[in-house]
Amino acid sequence: MAFKTLSAAAAAALDKELMSTGAFSIDQLMELAGLSVSQVVYRVHPPNKGNRVLVACGPGNNGGDGLVAARHLRHYGYQPTIFYPKRSKNELYQRLSKQLEDLEVPFVEDFSNAVNSTDHIIDAIFGFSFSGEVREPFPAVIKALQETKLPVTSVDAPSSWNIETGPPSSGLGSNFHPDFLVSLTAPKPLVQHFKGRHFIGGRFVSPAIAKKYDFEVPEYQGIDQYVEVSSGGQKL
Amino acid sequence: MAFKTLSAAAAAALDKELMSTGAFSIDQLMELAGLSVSQVVYRVHPPNKGNRVLVACGPGNNGGDGLVAARHLRHYGYQPTIFYPKRSKNELYQRLSKQLEDLEVPFVEDFSNAVNSTDHIIDAIFGFSFSGEVREPFPAVIKALQETKLPVTSVDAPSSWNIETGPPSSGLGSNFHPDFLVSLTAPKPLVQHFKGRHFIGGRFVSPAIAKKYDFEVPEYQGIDQYVEVSSGGQKL
Repeated sequence: MAFKTLSAAAAAALDKELMSTGAFSIDQLMELAGLSVSQVVYRVHPPNKGNRVLVACGPGNNGGDGLVAARHLRHYGYQPTIFYPKRSKNELYQRLSKQLEDLEVPFVEDFSNAVNSTDHIIDAIFGFSFSGEVREPFPAVIKALQETKLPVTSVDAPSSWNIETGPPSSGLGSNFHPDFLVSLTAPKPLVQHFKGRHFIGGRFVSPAIAKKYDFEVPEYQGIDQYVEVSSGGQKL
Repeated sequence: MAFKTLSAAAAAALDKELMSTGAFSIDQLMELAGLSVSQVVYRVHPPNKGNRVLVACGPGNNGGDGLVAARHLRHYGYQPTIFYPKRSKNELYQRLSKQLEDLEVPFVEDFSNAVNSTDHIIDAIFGFSFSGEVREPFPAVIKALQETKLPVTSVDAPSSWNIETGPPSSGLGSNFHPDFLVSLTAPKPLVQHFKGRHFIGGRFVSPAIAKKYDFEVPEYQGIDQYVEVSSGGQKL
């Protein structure tokens, strides 16, 4: 059975619909998305395997999901460090950053240095709205993610990958293969190129909305905010 | 060791501080509070014990927490029914209601009738801002909660209880003893009169804020959004 994926355009339309007719606020959706990422990280890399986690946040919603995940991880007993070089002036992101500062979570400027003093990395740089070139200062970050031996969890998309066609055929990002991927609401077409452990998070889509966008609400278990699926998307 | 509780006035000040200097939005806090309530209900009354849950929502924030909990319970596989007779015109509550309607969760008008076709009840009528008399149409609801043999989970306070002094000495609510209580952020003084299983939820308070308000952040486990404590508040 072919697994249903959401194109970049469909994912953008779904987000817009959730926040209009769906009546969700972005605060709510980002909280639940980030929570699901934090639960996946706890699953694949519990604090007793090393509680230092470096969270690379991009300028948009993907970065916001990373900020929320970092806060929950801090409450779970991790020691997160945030790399957030292009801070949004949007009020929501400023609030999410303040919430981390109040938990004494450090923000760092030097990613290469931070990679040398962490146990796990979250890639929350680019999500489904990414296309084109990786802009400064992120090329060096993608390069470091590509070269590190540390486990990396990508949020919604391995950053630098094309949402539809996957890794670039050559150059930056062509050899970036994160260990874990958390697809939010539904996998994007790039998952067919992903070979690691694949999770779906964001447990807030109604069956009616999923039907409209032609995907299935995955079979989450118990109170989990995520579910592990095969790379193709079937439940394991 | 005496257990630290938050007076009604301190709880109101804490809420205000979380949403000002703490930089949280009410959407975020209510989402996490309601989520913790849903996780407690899953713990004490998993769906295989009967998946029908009646959620009695009051006109304020306590009712909002109930609406959020009901949505998560629906995603966990429960069949919630909502009794929400005094719907707030506030935009947030209207959105939370719409989210439930999109999941085909029914809203009912007749509480006594609804009690006869449920397996579990959530009391999200009044929270820490309650004082004085129980207003219409809630006296009949408190009476039904008092008389039912079904398990009841109260959110933050057994509704009708005085936040500081507990159950009324006589009359309505004097014999209302819910089975389960989820104190949000920290127990209120009324817990000394509560004899059921006691949980704390709302995993978002920083150690600095807790210190300022003179309580301890409870020792949540793993990714749980709640922790069970003794009636006195010690960790079990």
